[in-house]
Amino acid sequence: MPKKVNVAILGSTGYSAGELIKILLRHPHAQLTALTTRQDGNPPVSKIHPSLYGRTDLKCENLSTPEIIKRSDLVFCALPHGASMAVIPELLSGGCKVIDLSADYRLNGPGVYETWYGLVHTDPTRLGNTVYGLPELFSEDIKGKDLIANPGCYTSTSILGLAPLLCEGYIDSEGICIDAKSGVSGAGRNPKLGTLYSECNESISPYSVGTHRHTPEIDEVLSQVSQKEVEVLFTPHLTPMDRGILASIYARPSKKASEEELLEVIRKYYENCPFIRVVEELPTTKQTVGTNYCDITVRVSRGFVIIFSCLDNLIKGASGVAVQNFNLLYDYPETTALIV
Amino acid sequence: MPKKVNVAILGSTGYSAGELIKILLRHPHAQLTALTTRQDGNPPVSKIHPSLYGRTDLKCENLSTPEIIKRSDLVFCALPHGASMAVIPELLSGGCKVIDLSADYRLNGPGVYETWYGLVHTDPTRLGNTVYGLPELFSEDIKGKDLIANPGCYTSTSILGLAPLLCEGYIDSEGICIDAKSGVSGAGRNPKLGTLYSECNESISPYSVGTHRHTPEIDEVLSQVSQKEVEVLFTPHLTPMDRGILASIYARPSKKASEEELLEVIRKYYENCPFIRVVEELPTTKQTVGTNYCDITVRVSRGFVIIFSCLDNLIKGASGVAVQNFNLLYDYPETTALIV
Amino acid sequence: MPKKVNVAILGSTGYSAGELIKILLRHPHAQLTALTTRQDGNPPVSKIHPSLYGRTDLKCENLSTPEIIKRSDLVFCALPHGASMAVIPELLSGGCKVIDLSADYRLNGPGVYETWYGLVHTDPTRLGNTVYGLPELFSEDIKGKDLIANPGCYTSTSILGLAPLLCEGYIDSEGICIDAKSGVSGAGRNPKLGTLYSECNESISPYSVGTHRHTPEIDEVLSQVSQKEVEVLFTPHLTPMDRGILASIYARPSKKASEEELLEVIRKYYENCPFIRVVEELPTTKQTVGTNYCDITVRVSRGFVIIFSCLDNLIKGASGVAVQNFNLLYDYPETTALIV
Amino acid sequence: MPKKVNVAILGSTGYSAGELIKILLRHPHAQLTALTTRQDGNPPVSKIHPSLYGRTDLKCENLSTPEIIKRSDLVFCALPHGASMAVIPELLSGGCKVIDLSADYRLNGPGVYETWYGLVHTDPTRLGNTVYGLPELFSEDIKGKDLIANPGCYTSTSILGLAPLLCEGYIDSEGICIDAKSGVSGAGRNPKLGTLYSECNESISPYSVGTHRHTPEIDEVLSQVSQKEVEVLFTPHLTPMDRGILASIYARPSKKASEEELLEVIRKYYENCPFIRVVEELPTTKQTVGTNYCDITVRVSRGFVIIFSCLDNLIKGASGVAVQNFNLLYDYPETTALIV
Repeated sequence: MPKKVNVAILGSTGYSAGELIKILLRHPHAQLTALTTRQDGNPPVSKIHPSLYGRTDLKCENLSTPEIIKRSDLVFCALPHGASMAVIPELLSGGCKVIDLSADYRLNGPGVYETWYGLVHTDPTRLGNTVYGLPELFSEDIKGKDLIANPGCYTSTSILGLAPLLCEGYIDSEGICIDAKSGVSGAGRNPKLGTLYSECNESISPYSVGTHRHTPEIDEVLSQVSQKEVEVLFTPHLTPMDRGILASIYARPSKKASEEELLEVIRKYYENCPFIRVVEELPTTKQTVGTNYCDITVRVSRGFVIIFSCLDNLIKGASGVAVQNFNLLYDYPETTALIV
Repeated sequence: MPKKVNVAILGSTGYSAGELIKILLRHPHAQLTALTTRQDGNPPVSKIHPSLYGRTDLKCENLSTPEIIKRSDLVFCALPHGASMAVIPELLSGGCKVIDLSADYRLNGPGVYETWYGLVHTDPTRLGNTVYGLPELFSEDIKGKDLIANPGCYTSTSILGLAPLLCEGYIDSEGICIDAKSGVSGAGRNPKLGTLYSECNESISPYSVGTHRHTPEIDEVLSQVSQKEVEVLFTPHLTPMDRGILASIYARPSKKASEEELLEVIRKYYENCPFIRVVEELPTTKQTVGTNYCDITVRVSRGFVIIFSCLDNLIKGASGVAVQNFNLLYDYPETTALIV
Repeated sequence: MPKKVNVAILGSTGYSAGELIKILLRHPHAQLTALTTRQDGNPPVSKIHPSLYGRTDLKCENLSTPEIIKRSDLVFCALPHGASMAVIPELLSGGCKVIDLSADYRLNGPGVYETWYGLVHTDPTRLGNTVYGLPELFSEDIKGKDLIANPGCYTSTSILGLAPLLCEGYIDSEGICIDAKSGVSGAGRNPKLGTLYSECNESISPYSVGTHRHTPEIDEVLSQVSQKEVEVLFTPHLTPMDRGILASIYARPSKKASEEELLEVIRKYYENCPFIRVVEELPTTKQTVGTNYCDITVRVSRGFVIIFSCLDNLIKGASGVAVQNFNLLYDYPETTALIV
Repeated sequence: MPKKVNVAILGSTGYSAGELIKILLRHPHAQLTALTTRQDGNPPVSKIHPSLYGRTDLKCENLSTPEIIKRSDLVFCALPHGASMAVIPELLSGGCKVIDLSADYRLNGPGVYETWYGLVHTDPTRLGNTVYGLPELFSEDIKGKDLIANPGCYTSTSILGLAPLLCEGYIDSEGICIDAKSGVSGAGRNPKLGTLYSECNESISPYSVGTHRHTPEIDEVLSQVSQKEVEVLFTPHLTPMDRGILASIYARPSKKASEEELLEVIRKYYENCPFIRVVEELPTTKQTVGTNYCDITVRVSRGFVIIFSCLDNLIKGASGVAVQNFNLLYDYPETTALIV
């Protein structure tokens, strides 16, 4: 039996980290060796994520970077932006591979990073030279890399929906509207008024209109793959459900095509992508919850092409795609541990 | 003390009818005299709507039209489309005023009705000659009428959001996208697979894309008030909450204007409308639930004007506006029984 | 027209305070004159409770006690326990009447207070001499008082369910089990991990088993009204809904009686109580949401008497009963502003 | 590689069947060969359960019993009660093994069946001679059987919580109260008014008090394993969540024991049971959702022993335990396909 890869997770208390642990516990080639937290007391991870009770004896520890390096071959970095770039250079120097779930290495340069995140980037040379870990678009670039910038949840939903028709010339690059709806887990696990049950239950509301930080990611990646300048209007909505993102995307056709032709274009674009399901019926976020699938369909109506794309924000939108990247990095079958 | 208006509700078992009963029970000038159902057995209305226990002794009865006419001065008709137009002519002949909550008298003509509802209209001469009961736009026409076509819930949300900027020339009439999200009560109270708790809970999904029957209503009313030909793209989504509709509306500016200018245009347009709240912060559907308010705001971003409009689909979207029409009809203060 | 009572609310940012403001805005004899908060900046109350937008121009102010006394005849104190007893003596000295929504004056003495709340009571002479503001049991004592201890939400639900059969000798005082389920708003509006949407949505869980602070209130009030020593087992559960409390109460019969006889005992006990609805069908919390009703029924099965009692925790469980007490204090009809 | 077991599912359109298909798709020793429905048209199973899109090409077919026998070695029968006993004798005669998820073979005799289900049992000789498929109690009896009566969801939750302390003599067999809370999926997938989203969302309510059909199952199994006559009071509540059952069980101690001692008794009782997690903290249903675990803890307060037991009603309460039985029948490791 081949040696397993020793794996650490930095920032193991959030929702995405909880899902990541579950996936890695069933991964035949990964061995969890470190889970970190800034909390003291080394609580068992099942105290933080009670669903893991009885699954593992791992503790959440406040570990130094050298200790993390000692214990692991690969690090999933689930820290907040800013905190990620503070530790990743040292991890890389120490010989670890890193899959970064934060936004710190996703953008093309320190200028746009500073504009959207309000921080000076402290590792600017890597920024713009780090592969964007969306396997459906960049699997060849991902293989063999040391650092992968795992994409944002809204970003993946939006890009996966738009890339085929944009790249194949079926929709205009101008005037694209993305109306996105996300479950509340996307807002993280830090107590805040806005994510209290009694605030967001029984209510839907737009937020960060025109200012959401996933916007430049969508722009840059779509511009890169389509070779056109893309600037989307991205409007997220907080939706009263635990998980799931639906992007309803409104675009203008560049040429006449029926729904069936457009579906066929998308199917062909993703023909080797095991986690894209091009569906004919209008999808529900629920049909993707708990899975690593992204379900996509398209409609044509009144001069618009309307693309619907949905996925589980914690899995395909975060931890599932991170493991998909892990599989690509180590040349395991792409679906390992990801279809249950 | 002036004589109260005797009021009947036809089709009293649905969610909108339940709200209507509650509003009328507190209305100082209305006296509920008949509630109808096709169910037999004359169940007390509190058996159908348990929240009404102890509030009234009224029963839901299977009444003939002559009996309804005998008991009432005004009839709220909360029957399904098709059933409404089958009974309304007789009610009018019998001397009743009618506020019809169905879609039967909302459209401009029998052709468009047949196209969207798949039924031949049986009262075509009244169709197109019936006032559309959206008081913010047509209050003068409503006064004194015998028959009022109460608007649809998605329709009101959309039209109220769009009318000011469209009529005042700030947005293009072409290419308007309405991405609407509705709570499940909007789908009615008849048991159906799609509205079972375990189907729609924890999920958001688009439906009736390009085919929703509120589309022609929006088109016709906006075309009428703006004197432009309007054809909107209307995309509804089933949202996991009891009540509330949010319309996120994407339009193109016709002239340059700041958010503050646009807000001012909307405020001015509705300056005499007690149920429109032009808000600066992004609204949540929850802040309108249980009220007859429609909350509206606007943003400008990346070449789009984005209007957010939200309301309670059962109140401002159905029963509240019906009572607002009732107040206008009988010249009571417009807010009577509607602000609690 | 009689002069209105000038009313202040201390601690106006929580959920109960939000409901209280709504009720008082429609109260014909109350004039809101002060809303307090420890937040600076005097935000408009509609910024804190967006549903109040357009309803009032009141601000939430950081007011001194003398200023509160100057502005108000009666103060609703919606502060946390501890904070209430720190300000109430001065309010009373200043001539204000006080309805205290905290737990500070509910118990019989400083010893039990210290045991359950972990605080030394700083106003011990009033403790045990303050009327318990449950109008269905103590309306005569409430009238004309200066200070009223408004009851807890679980407490009212439990006591209202148990009092009739206990006082009339139909159930044993020993071995009473109360299995209570509350919506999340009962846990307050301060951001905490446990009340985040993604923690408590899609989950039910017991908490504070054997240690919930409403336990001694239930014991003391039931012991007082039944003249028996009562010690209940009280087990609360956090339930994934905004509002509503259901108490499922298991007791042993003291004498043989049918369900119908027991219902009749309860009906008789509450025959002059406009907010108690003794129902025959099993109630749902939803039928009481938004109302000041408490719905009660009873079943007999397998040697147990099972009482179900439910209400809206923010209204009949907090702000509605507070206004009911206000009405009694000032001799207004008990239902004023409370049935809409 | 050993031959896989050919497996059919009768009644494949419900929620439990959907989960069962998912588990069997990942089972290394099971091969799904038939899914039945009474619907015509042979819809792909992914049309019925959209989450299965892309996972299998199986169709839901309206198959004759001989055809089912031809295709399968083992049949999971997920039909309604009554329909199960109409087909199972023929399946057994045809050489199939059967795991019946209905209630038809769970009880001890036709009398009690007729009393609670209102039907004459048509296969009475098997009734009372069929093993009750709760592996934690009856694993030795399950092995090698042809027919297994898979337990009810409330039943498993209740029995697993009670059996240890009852069998080991720590609690009285008399006066046990089970207050159970279930997610709405437990009520099935047939459209009914009571399980519409807008009926049960934002509400908790008791139902079937004293009459729920899982009551005799609990009585019989607990009486059998404890050798005492047990008659529990069982009170179910419909809870606004998709999945999960929590039983809060109130019993009287038979002898003095601390919480830690009681936990130890339960741990010991289940020491070889991989799906029982005896936890110290109060559990939430959410921590078991999506798993085959049953989480149990215990508290002592005011003369009561309070046991909390929770699980996922569709998995450990239905389909997971069915596969656990399958594993036992064929001597596969008990956890095969059940821990992911």
